[in-house]
This record gives sequence, structure tokens and C-alpha cells, in this order.
Amino acid sequence: MTAFSFRVHATCGTARLGEISTPRGRIRTPAFMPVGTQATVKAMYPEQVRALGADIILGNTYHLMLRPGAERVAKLGGLHAFMDWPHPILTDSGGFQVMSLASLRKLDEGGVTFRSHLDGSEHRLTPERSIEIQSLLGADIQMQLDECLKLPAPREDIARAMELSLRWAERSKKAFEGQPEGRALFGIVQGGDQPDLRVESARALAAMDFHGLAVGGLAVGEPQDVMLAMIETVEPHLPAAKPRYLMGVGTPDDILEAASRGIDMFDCVMPTRAGRHATAFTRFGRINLRNARHAEDTRPLDPDSPSEPLRRWSRAYLHHLVRAEEMLAGMILTAVNIAYYQELMAGIRAAIAEGRLAAFRDEVKAGWAAGDLPAL
Amino acid sequence: MTAFSFRVHATCGTARLGEISTPRGRIRTPAFMPVGTQATVKAMYPEQVRALGADIILGNTYHLMLRPGAERVAKLGGLHAFMDWPHPILTDSGGFQVMSLASLRKLDEGGVTFRSHLDGSEHRLTPERSIEIQSLLGADIQMQLDECLKLPAPREDIARAMELSLRWAERSKKAFEGQPEGRALFGIVQGGDQPDLRVESARALAAMDFHGLAVGGLAVGEPQDVMLAMIETVEPHLPAAKPRYLMGVGTPDDILEAASRGIDMFDCVMPTRAGRHATAFTRFGRINLRNARHAEDTRPLDPDSPSEPLRRWSRAYLHHLVRAEEMLAGMILTAVNIAYYQELMAGIRAAIAEGRLAAFRDEVKAGWAAGDLPAL
Repeated sequence: MTAFSFRVHATCGTARLGEISTPRGRIRTPAFMPVGTQATVKAMYPEQVRALGADIILGNTYHLMLRPGAERVAKLGGLHAFMDWPHPILTDSGGFQVMSLASLRKLDEGGVTFRSHLDGSEHRLTPERSIEIQSLLGADIQMQLDECLKLPAPREDIARAMELSLRWAERSKKAFEGQPEGRALFGIVQGGDQPDLRVESARALAAMDFHGLAVGGLAVGEPQDVMLAMIETVEPHLPAAKPRYLMGVGTPDDILEAASRGIDMFDCVMPTRAGRHATAFTRFGRINLRNARHAEDTRPLDPDSPSEPLRRWSRAYLHHLVRAEEMLAGMILTAVNIAYYQELMAGIRAAIAEGRLAAFRDEVKAGWAAGDLPAL
Repeated sequence: MTAFSFRVHATCGTARLGEISTPRGRIRTPAFMPVGTQATVKAMYPEQVRALGADIILGNTYHLMLRPGAERVAKLGGLHAFMDWPHPILTDSGGFQVMSLASLRKLDEGGVTFRSHLDGSEHRLTPERSIEIQSLLGADIQMQLDECLKLPAPREDIARAMELSLRWAERSKKAFEGQPEGRALFGIVQGGDQPDLRVESARALAAMDFHGLAVGGLAVGEPQDVMLAMIETVEPHLPAAKPRYLMGVGTPDDILEAASRGIDMFDCVMPTRAGRHATAFTRFGRINLRNARHAEDTRPLDPDSPSEPLRRWSRAYLHHLVRAEEMLAGMILTAVNIAYYQELMAGIRAAIAEGRLAAFRDEVKAGWAAGDLPAL
């Protein structure tokens, strides 16, 4: 059994090209993790997700603890076997969705009590129970329970949540002890949009020797420049030898900017969600396939893409499927978006290796700014 | 360019094992044609449909003429290119859906005028326009426009519709002239549940020398024994050297019984529709994956199936996907059902070749009657 490890192969400015090793396989970084909320990356077969370049996917503890339940998943052989994804899985702690989806939330020092959005049943999530659930799921990378506030928020609330998250980090670390060799636990930097609180959080977590650190509580309502400023503030205080994960981010532009600032891992529902709503992410920016301009356009989304979903289907066909509300529309456009996100990550990795990330960033942004191909 | 042709390789009682040759490939008969109503077999990639054993799919003229439109499909290179299905396609005439979906239908000697169920726009379908549309779509096998009544219906209505359908058959045949070599046109036997009218229709159509004949106006509300009796009545009057297609049929049991009575081709939305509604067709009969008995059942639907979709996924996972309303549930269960239908057709073909169709039928029915595997 391989231990969990991380190596940086090359840097370009603050950006890093690296590789995480786990018993279930390697993760090339910077990495994008497609979101598989309910034990499926929506509208995709797992082998498609893999073939398009994903080394790791994310599962949501909140959803899985409610349905089908962590003990049930464990009984069925764990999340990997359950969904037929043999590669690495990262699970979140459940805390973020408790705050955004559950009702009647009550947070105290011990944890958070809430009612399920599915059936109103009462549940309690503590740092210990979150780790237990993630362990039952069999997650390769697990996250500490934290408190994540929406921004803007008063400084005193941000400070209180950050300090609580540090105490929960300690408890999570203790609860994680004894899990099989090769599994990893990440701490989560909080501190909202307050630079000093962010630094305090990062330093305290760095001292706790997690396998990696995440930056949480961003992309929660603040402008992109605030998010990037927070990453720049925190980055020097994150251990260079460990992977850094920016949670829930983001647009292709967010990812490009954050990777340039030293972030190694990302996850976001954006590509999968947009794919179910007629939007394709491409080298030419976002393309809305519902638009009538595509109705007789025999060209694919991107004839020069390395990814089959962007080359195979005509815009006219995709437009028809969208208008006809066919499931295949969501299936193909989800695959298109996962393909484009992975294509972007591969481009970022290659650019770091070649020491030309800034130029790559300019080229990619110019492509987005130039917009879609002219109409036929 | 190969001409359209049909050969019977073997018979077993009235049942026939055969092969249709078309320029786009061969069709092993008895054949089941998955339904691709709106230029997609719902929830499946075309290569999956192919890999599970389909030699031909069906497209719906009514839907395609309204959206995206026949002239548009032609401009985009035809239906095969549009949906990336290079194998044979049969299109219906549009008449059946006009009667079941459109509003404000007005039928006269010339054709039928109706309003679209999509936007209320007025359209007219005549025998000539139906063939023109099917030609624009590029269908390999085309169907004459007919009038299809729901049963029960008064004998005089059935007689009038059958006679009108014969006149439309003549007009369709004339309209079909000049299409590229290798395309085929089928006439449609009508006559409801009236044996003498069925025979009259079949004889008249046989004399017109179509490439094949369909039996229409069945599975429209009558009991199975009436449907089978009508097939037995008609069969001796259908030219033995031409393929026979039972339109819109049916359950696995309907197909087994009708193939035993000399039918060569089938289509039905049942496997695809049921797949989107949590129902799997298997050797053990229909299985409702929503049922809680599957919640912790790690067994696949059928461990001994030759088809990957029935062997790969645990019942527990399928149950979870159904409960969570995940698209992957419909995707997998549609593939399961298309796989099972094709598995059944392959079994029927093998049994005819071996001269043991009656025994095969008894075995398959015994499997359905025995029901699902006992709960774990």
C-alpha cells in the first residue's frame, strides 16, 4: 500500500506542477475534481469522467449521509465500489451543505444539529461524526468539519467561525487517527475577507501537520479580486510541501488565476450544472446552445479540441437536443464541460512545466475574450 | 450500392429467421428497433444502442417534421449524420402521432390537417408529403401514410379507414418512385379487429409489391389474444419473401408471441420509457428498482446476462440513483432494457435456427413467471 504523498515537479512563479500519490492512484496537479454529489457525476458514466482526464472526483458528505447513508454505503463496500469509480475520491465534511441546504440549523461548540432537506429528519454533525462518515464512505482525502460563512459578514462573526474551525480541526485530526495507511486529512483555512484572520488560521493549521490544506469560505459571494487577494495573503503561510485546495472554485477564469497563485486542487459544480442548462464551456468562452444562431450550424463546438465531445456533435444537433429537452443534451454538454475543464487543467500543467504560465494565461483569456466563432 | 433485399435463412413453424440487406448494413430478423423519436434514443449515446445489438432504429416523422423540420435535417446532411447513427433507420409516416398527439385534426381524402402540439402551428400531412419528409430525413425504410384507429371501433369506421389506407398506399408508392436505390417502402395492413377486413387489406397490399408489409392498428387498446388472432389471420396473406413489421409492439411477451407467428420486425417505446421510470426488463420479468427491497442488495440485475448493463451495477446503486432522481438512473435502466430486448431477439433468432422456438418460448415465459431472485 502506497502512502499518501505529494511532490512538486516544477514551479512557475507561485504556481506549482505536482503529483499526489495515493493507494488508489496519482492525481496530477493542478487538478480539477468533478463533483459527484450523490454518488454520481450527474449525467455521466464514471468511465467517461475518467477518460476525459479526471484523476479524482468529489463526493458530498451531507448528501450521502442522508441518502443512502454512510453505514449503508460502508455495508455495500464503500463509495468507490458503490458507484464503480476505482480512482481517488475526496469528500467534503458536510458542513457547507448543512449551512446551504438543511433547515433549522443549530450550531454549537460541539457541532451542528439540523433537519434534512429531504424528509425533515433531525441529524447531528460533529467533527468526529464527519470523519467517521468520510471513513465509512472510504474517502481517500477527507476534510475537517468547519464553519463556512457567506460574505460579506461582520468581522467578529468571521473571527468566531475561524476560531471554532481551528478547534474543530484539532478534533478532526484526533478523530482521523487509525484510518488505513494512505488516506489523507486536510485542514481548512477560514477567516473570510480579513487578511489577518486568514493568516492566523493558516499558521495555526500549518502547525497541525495535516496532509494538505484547503482554503475555504471563498467564492461565497465576494468579488473575484477579493478572493484572489485572500489567496495571495494566505499562500505564503501554506506549507510548500503539501497540496493546497481551493474549495468550490470555480469558473475557468477563477481556476486559471488561482492556479497561478499556487493552488493545486479545485472542485466546482459549475461545469456539470451548466451542462444540464444548455451552456458549454469552450476555448471561445461560454456558448449557449439554446440560441437560435446554432440551429443550422453544422460545426462542432470546437473543431480543434483534443476532446471528443467538443469535436463530435454539431451545434445544430446540440441545439435541437436542448430545444427538445432531450436527456442527451445534458449528457453531452456535461461531458463537453468536464472535457473543457480538464483540457484547461492539462494546459495549465503543461504551461507550468514549460515555464510559460503567464503567457498561457494571456492566450487563454484572449480566446475567451474574442468570443465564439463567427456565425456561418 | 446494395439493393434492399430480404432473405429467410430458416423457419420454425411460422417463425422466420432472416436478414434484411440495405446499403447501410444488414438487419438480423426478428429485429427489435429502439425508438429514437426526436433524433435520439432517449438517454443513450448512439454507440451504446449499437453495441447492445440494435441493427436499426426508428425515427418519428411527426416529431421530426415539427422540430427541427425535415428540410432542416436534409440541409444538415440527413438524419443519420445529424444524430451520428450510420446504421439503418426506419421512419414511420407520422400518421399515428398526428392522431395521438396533435390537436384539431381534420382528416379528408387528401390527407390530414392538424395543429402542432408544440406551438399550435397548422400543418398538413398527405401521403405524398409524408414520403417527401421521410426522403428528406434519408430514411432507409419508409412507411406509407395510413389511418390508424383506436380499438374498439365500429366496423364501418374500421372499413372506411382500411379502404382509405389502401388508396393512400397507392399514392405513397407513386410518391416513393425515384428515391435512391436501396431504400424501401412498406405498406401497412389495417382492418382493426375484423378478420375479413384484415385479409382484404393484406391481399390488396400484397398485390402492390411493396418492399415489406407492416401490420398496423394493433396494440391500440385490444387484448393480447385479439392482437395475436389478427396476426394469425393476416399472416398467410403476407408475401413470404418480404419482411413483416408489427408496428408499436410491444412487451417482451408480445414480441415472443408475434415472432412465433411470423413477424420479423418490432418497435416500441416500452423499454426506453420504462427505463426512465425505474423499471428494468429482465429474464426474471419486470423489476421495479424504486422498491426498498433493493436498498442493500449488492447483486446486479442479472449476474448471468450477456449484457454489461445488467451485470455491472448493483441493485442497491440503481435503487439509490432512482430515489435520488439522478439522470444516471434513467441512463443505465434504458440501456438495461434495450440490452434485454436485444438479448431476447438474439434468443429468438437462435431458437429459430435450432428449430426449438416453442421450447425457448416456454423457458423464457417460465423465467418471467418465476419472478425476481429471492431477496437477500
